[in-house]
Amino acid sequence: MEVYSKAETLALRQKHIGPSCKVFFAKDPIKIVQARGQYMFDENGEKYLDCINNVAHVGHSHPDVVKAAVKQMELLNTNSRFLHDNLVQYAKRLTTTLPEKLSVCYFVNSGSEANDLALRLARQYSGHYDVITLDHAYHGHVTSLIDISPYKFNQLGKEAKKEFVHVAPSPDIYRGKYREDHEDPAGAYADDVRNIIEKAQKNGHKIAAFIAESMQSCGGQIIPPAGYFQKVAQFVHKAGGVFIADEVQVGFGRVGKNFWAFQLQGEDFVPDIVTMGKPIGNGHPMSCVVTTREIAEAFGASGLEYFNTFGGNPVSCAIGLAVLDIIEKEDLQGNATRVGNYLFGLLKEQQKKHSLVGDVRGAGLFIGVDLVKDQIRRTPATAEAQHIIYKLKERKILLSADGPYRNVLKFKPPMCFSMEDAKFVVEQIDELLTDLEKATQIRAKNSLPTNTQSKRKVSLEKVNLLFFNIITVIHVQSLILEQIFPVCVTFSYIFSSVIPTH
Amino acid sequence: MEVYSKAETLALRQKHIGPSCKVFFAKDPIKIVQARGQYMFDENGEKYLDCINNVAHVGHSHPDVVKAAVKQMELLNTNSRFLHDNLVQYAKRLTTTLPEKLSVCYFVNSGSEANDLALRLARQYSGHYDVITLDHAYHGHVTSLIDISPYKFNQLGKEAKKEFVHVAPSPDIYRGKYREDHEDPAGAYADDVRNIIEKAQKNGHKIAAFIAESMQSCGGQIIPPAGYFQKVAQFVHKAGGVFIADEVQVGFGRVGKNFWAFQLQGEDFVPDIVTMGKPIGNGHPMSCVVTTREIAEAFGASGLEYFNTFGGNPVSCAIGLAVLDIIEKEDLQGNATRVGNYLFGLLKEQQKKHSLVGDVRGAGLFIGVDLVKDQIRRTPATAEAQHIIYKLKERKILLSADGPYRNVLKFKPPMCFSMEDAKFVVEQIDELLTDLEKATQIRAKNSLPTNTQSKRKVSLEKVNLLFFNIITVIHVQSLILEQIFPVCVTFSYIFSSVIPTH
Repeated sequence: MEVYSKAETLALRQKHIGPSCKVFFAKDPIKIVQARGQYMFDENGEKYLDCINNVAHVGHSHPDVVKAAVKQMELLNTNSRFLHDNLVQYAKRLTTTLPEKLSVCYFVNSGSEANDLALRLARQYSGHYDVITLDHAYHGHVTSLIDISPYKFNQLGKEAKKEFVHVAPSPDIYRGKYREDHEDPAGAYADDVRNIIEKAQKNGHKIAAFIAESMQSCGGQIIPPAGYFQKVAQFVHKAGGVFIADEVQVGFGRVGKNFWAFQLQGEDFVPDIVTMGKPIGNGHPMSCVVTTREIAEAFGASGLEYFNTFGGNPVSCAIGLAVLDIIEKEDLQGNATRVGNYLFGLLKEQQKKHSLVGDVRGAGLFIGVDLVKDQIRRTPATAEAQHIIYKLKERKILLSADGPYRNVLKFKPPMCFSMEDAKFVVEQIDELLTDLEKATQIRAKNSLPTNTQSKRKVSLEKVNLLFFNIITVIHVQSLILEQIFPVCVTFSYIFSSVIPTH
Repeated sequence: MEVYSKAETLALRQKHIGPSCKVFFAKDPIKIVQARGQYMFDENGEKYLDCINNVAHVGHSHPDVVKAAVKQMELLNTNSRFLHDNLVQYAKRLTTTLPEKLSVCYFVNSGSEANDLALRLARQYSGHYDVITLDHAYHGHVTSLIDISPYKFNQLGKEAKKEFVHVAPSPDIYRGKYREDHEDPAGAYADDVRNIIEKAQKNGHKIAAFIAESMQSCGGQIIPPAGYFQKVAQFVHKAGGVFIADEVQVGFGRVGKNFWAFQLQGEDFVPDIVTMGKPIGNGHPMSCVVTTREIAEAFGASGLEYFNTFGGNPVSCAIGLAVLDIIEKEDLQGNATRVGNYLFGLLKEQQKKHSLVGDVRGAGLFIGVDLVKDQIRRTPATAEAQHIIYKLKERKILLSADGPYRNVLKFKPPMCFSMEDAKFVVEQIDELLTDLEKATQIRAKNSLPTNTQSKRKVSLEKVNLLFFNIITVIHVQSLILEQIFPVCVTFSYIFSSVIPTH
């Protein structure tokens, strides 16, 4: 099956692929040649359990997806300037999963194209330009989205934030500004958005949109408290802007209970624009923006045509339809609930057992395990998270760590993930945590009650900064040591194998 | 094969697809259910000759493309954070078609994503922000590209041009500032770019990039005079910027003589960044940016990862490889030369015969026929072009008209277009031109020598404005008349069936 040896593949990659395009486990990347369901296979036939590829939503290489693609490819693949049944059939089907007022679709090729178009719609409709985004948010790789992604632009220095961008605190009730001990975190986080709007308006800025992932993914598997979106939408609407729910990572039944993650906020919440991506075509490049008739008409009123060469082609739509069919036929939403709840329960037990586990949060098959070095201060256990990820890879399990401190173990597996898979991965994590705690002699769980903790948030940031500096020093030292004593290789490994997984 | 009747499809489309997404022949759109080679078939089995779909590069539904897609889809479709042979094999193969220094690839999903990334590369490398673009240019639908596409932003009013955007005249030697009678149009157009740079620099602006399609497509099938790009590149490099050649519409052997259209400028010209799209996957959503090691390293130096979820997945790469194989195996580049030259010759004969044909220009299977109402003033024959397009559609031939006046018949068929196809379409055009000339009693060809014409360019613009106003009046009148006398329907048809085809 291989054309090149792994070493040759790597060498060619270094020669011909942009160095900004990173691989998983940079020091010893994996070559995958085949995948099926929730399993991936390397060039030696080694089987990996996949806990991270939310794109392979209905399972890797699902035969029904392949069948639908082939059938349509053999007939026709052309642009949407010709009428075609697949386009309208898919649009009709997709909109039935959404609240009624979300009825107009634009088909595009990626989550980035979707979010960019959402901004264009919002700006045209509102006549405003400014955008409110959440801290640590990532919304895509095109210029307009790097601008509204603190996850990215914060890496470029403080000046990288544009004037039209307003960053609201991430509604993280474990590590954020208002925590689980706050009487109304949803209200408090929403009030912050209101304050941002008022301040912006005082400075002559007008808000076009508030954009948020329905649950933050790269931001650290954050589940906003219910009611937050409703309140934010109210403030944003009052300011003449719209609410964009980014479902690129979390849509299509992943949360189990609902088809869309924004629905976890309550039935009374309906965003003005929803963007979709990753799982929509099970890996086929496609995505969609759905909005209201009103916003679509306002966008059309500019007279500017919107044409997307590949968007909504008959093959993409056939694949999209097949994915919806499979979710239904195989009850993958039900599976996400059942297996998700089971996995969540197992991880909660880990939280009781291991002081390294600070928080377990999630919905369905979207779960985050926030590792901490200290239960009171909630100091992110970044190196430990990286160590676990790396050790899991050795045990043929693919998991990743993300969030601003890269300390949150991030579960978002194909939706066919099973009870056995859940049990297996948690057993491995249990062993690794036990080993790690032994090795680092981490002290027993601190018993300080959690409701006194939010007062520490300012000093916490300082602690975190210090922590990062220490990590850097250790990493550099390890690299030097590695040159002298090969046995130290694992140390630099741990600190360098940061695995971003948006 | 149909799920819905054409009327139902149309109704569902109006309900569920954004009104900004236009169809061809808005008053009587075509429903296509199947296609093969250079032919498309509607729901009644009617066969259309396709002269416009440059995306279906190696022919609609090519079996080798389908085979390659299925084979890979059955095995694996995942992201490029895992090593895979297809990615590096394709990157290696693609870069061999380019000058040596263009060796580093970034795989993305669309021409828009490619051009946006090209801007990011240029800005990071140069440390500058401003962009020089050609008048009438179209580079894509995302926010950053609407900004540099006069084809789009000019429709939004004069204020729509951003300060960092500098518009250079389109190097159109038929209708532009310097014409075929100019002793050195390449030098003159390039000098204009130099002047723009100097003016920008005086105002504190720094040039990140000059971007141009290697041949303007939406801009009116413009072939820049050889030597123009070299001179521009020299000025842009001196200013610290880079040269981006947009090959999204015109690459992959379409021009026949060369694999890339920028190569028509001469062997001494090498752009710093090349962007690709449409034909690269024969309709599969994929595209690519290729640049130099130096620029790629500078982009990487920011430390920001570049990740594109679908970009460079094994299925897209397998399809890309199949397309390159087919171009070679079926000698489609040779076919583009042979059939292109033949078609060009036939159209040149039309130019001699019909006073409506002002200019015929092109390379390989990329040809424009500039229709004029007046050979001396070169007044664009917009309505006539639309009439011909519409009448050709009745004769089951798909052709489009584009350019700033939508008067340029635009040939960019699948590369398997044959001599017979060329003969057939020109015969039909001949008949239609003859009929049209008879009906409108257009006077015989004016014999004024062409080398006196460029002096008239200022007054020409006024004439064109007036002409557009007249068209609008006629169109509105026709619409009113149509209500009274159904027989007048054709008139409003002609004036409304404007068919953009980027």
